[in-house]
Amino acid sequence: MKEIKIGLLGLGNIGTGTYKVLEMNRDQIEASVGTKVNIVKILEKYIDRERDIDVPREKFVAKAEDIFDDPEIDIVIELLGGVEPAASLIEQALRSGKHVVTANKAAVAANYHRLMDAAKEGGVQLRFEASVGGGIPVLTALTGCLQANKFTRVLGIVNGTTNYILDKMTTEGLSYDEVLKDAQEKGFAEADPTADVEGIDAANKLSILMALMFDHYVHPDDIPRKGITEITPEDIEEARGNKTLIKLIAYAEKFEDGSIKYEVRPMYIKETHPLGGVHKEYNAVFVEGNAVGNLMFYGPGAGPLPTGSAVMGDVMELAKTML
Amino acid sequence: MKEIKIGLLGLGNIGTGTYKVLEMNRDQIEASVGTKVNIVKILEKYIDRERDIDVPREKFVAKAEDIFDDPEIDIVIELLGGVEPAASLIEQALRSGKHVVTANKAAVAANYHRLMDAAKEGGVQLRFEASVGGGIPVLTALTGCLQANKFTRVLGIVNGTTNYILDKMTTEGLSYDEVLKDAQEKGFAEADPTADVEGIDAANKLSILMALMFDHYVHPDDIPRKGITEITPEDIEEARGNKTLIKLIAYAEKFEDGSIKYEVRPMYIKETHPLGGVHKEYNAVFVEGNAVGNLMFYGPGAGPLPTGSAVMGDVMELAKTML
Repeated sequence: MKEIKIGLLGLGNIGTGTYKVLEMNRDQIEASVGTKVNIVKILEKYIDRERDIDVPREKFVAKAEDIFDDPEIDIVIELLGGVEPAASLIEQALRSGKHVVTANKAAVAANYHRLMDAAKEGGVQLRFEASVGGGIPVLTALTGCLQANKFTRVLGIVNGTTNYILDKMTTEGLSYDEVLKDAQEKGFAEADPTADVEGIDAANKLSILMALMFDHYVHPDDIPRKGITEITPEDIEEARGNKTLIKLIAYAEKFEDGSIKYEVRPMYIKETHPLGGVHKEYNAVFVEGNAVGNLMFYGPGAGPLPTGSAVMGDVMELAKTML
Repeated sequence: MKEIKIGLLGLGNIGTGTYKVLEMNRDQIEASVGTKVNIVKILEKYIDRERDIDVPREKFVAKAEDIFDDPEIDIVIELLGGVEPAASLIEQALRSGKHVVTANKAAVAANYHRLMDAAKEGGVQLRFEASVGGGIPVLTALTGCLQANKFTRVLGIVNGTTNYILDKMTTEGLSYDEVLKDAQEKGFAEADPTADVEGIDAANKLSILMALMFDHYVHPDDIPRKGITEITPEDIEEARGNKTLIKLIAYAEKFEDGSIKYEVRPMYIKETHPLGGVHKEYNAVFVEGNAVGNLMFYGPGAGPLPTGSAVMGDVMELAKTML
């Protein structure tokens, strides 16, 4: 029986979640793809970090080349996060002829063409379903089932931290600072929440959505954005009086003349709109296509197991092309 | 440039919608798959029916064999509806070595193994994304991006007619009979609404969902079901008092001991549950996987263009395997 051998870059939260998804569903995963599937080498600085999985010590390697130069490895999973060195490692893996699966929105959004070109030149695939919406299968749906559409619009709640904060401000009447502190204590917000609350993370995801939906790449730094730090309980109260909710929205629209408008900013969403039902740290992507009309994908936009679900889904799709 | 040639069975509402999706997005569809894509032969009894598309008369053929025996035809799209003769024609097409795309839930649900076996023996694919949830990309997501999960539960609002009726009873306080009459006048309900209001259509879709999610096929006739005809305004008022809504739900759950419970019946759904925000004739499928957690897919569950979007998505996926 053939074996799909995987090299993993990064065994932090998401890497551990991915490892765990493979362990807990191995029987079904291997039966479905018809091969054994194993993470055989892992590049990770903090080998002895506490984890709730049991990883044989001999899997850890000292440098990325131990993975890229191993002819037995078919797929590289990149879960280091951040733009660099992740983007350069993804590129190196692709140019070494390895398929790459990543959840890294920052690296993909900042280097879209560079990485797609590297995949083409390496004759391999770069898959990044987990980079937008975490476990929600949105990217593959847009480029698969929905590919007969011309897309006209996307409205995405694509950052769980900011949705959690705004939802809590709305339901409990608290201030931004109070909720942020609570979110940080509960692990829903980082110690430095800038990338989330200033809309940087959402801009990364919008950049990827636009590239796939409109075949139009915009660097995330060039996406106008406004975060949620200035929103007051009074703003939220006023919105509620108009039967709306304030949500941080990654928005892009393509008009009939071909022009595209895009931005990340807080918007008023009607309570009865499907996006109005997206509470707590959940994500949702609402899209409009000229054939299908309005659709929404809803689910957990982050977290080790949901993200691991999307990563392993990409791995299985690749495995099925290798038989 | 290679050309993908398609034979179409049925040019009713859905067939016309599918033809229209190809016409209106042909530039993008052909650029994406890298070949020309044409519906070259059509089997349809009512050639002169009024349609808002222009179909060259010479495309119409007299019998299915004119399509199945044509070595130039790669893909057959079946949009006749109903179990027979549709199922037998699908089987015949598959055994002739043609890939088949269908939106026909009744034919697929009643003949699941027979048709899957025929596809295997013909060395071809049977795709039926449009059969559940119309334009919503749910089946391919379950078997693609989400395939690393063991699924535990599905709750589907998979019939637009009944959701329209229940939603209207809820928002306007009308009786079942009053709303049914209105829905029939507006074209949201058939003259004979039995298959919808008795849950037969929903049972067909649940049968397909269970086969894909749990690898467990149950004939739709063996799915316990209760329709919506006995629901009174008082029932709905009582539900609202408890902050719930009555929805017709296609439900299946797999328990830890491996047993599966399944039924179609009206259920109380909390107003704040994502399914509580599914109004009018919209559909939504809420699923639970052991890695991803809770997800929901929302969108138009029927209609010529949304269904045509899903059918053409399947056609494009097939076309990409033929290059």
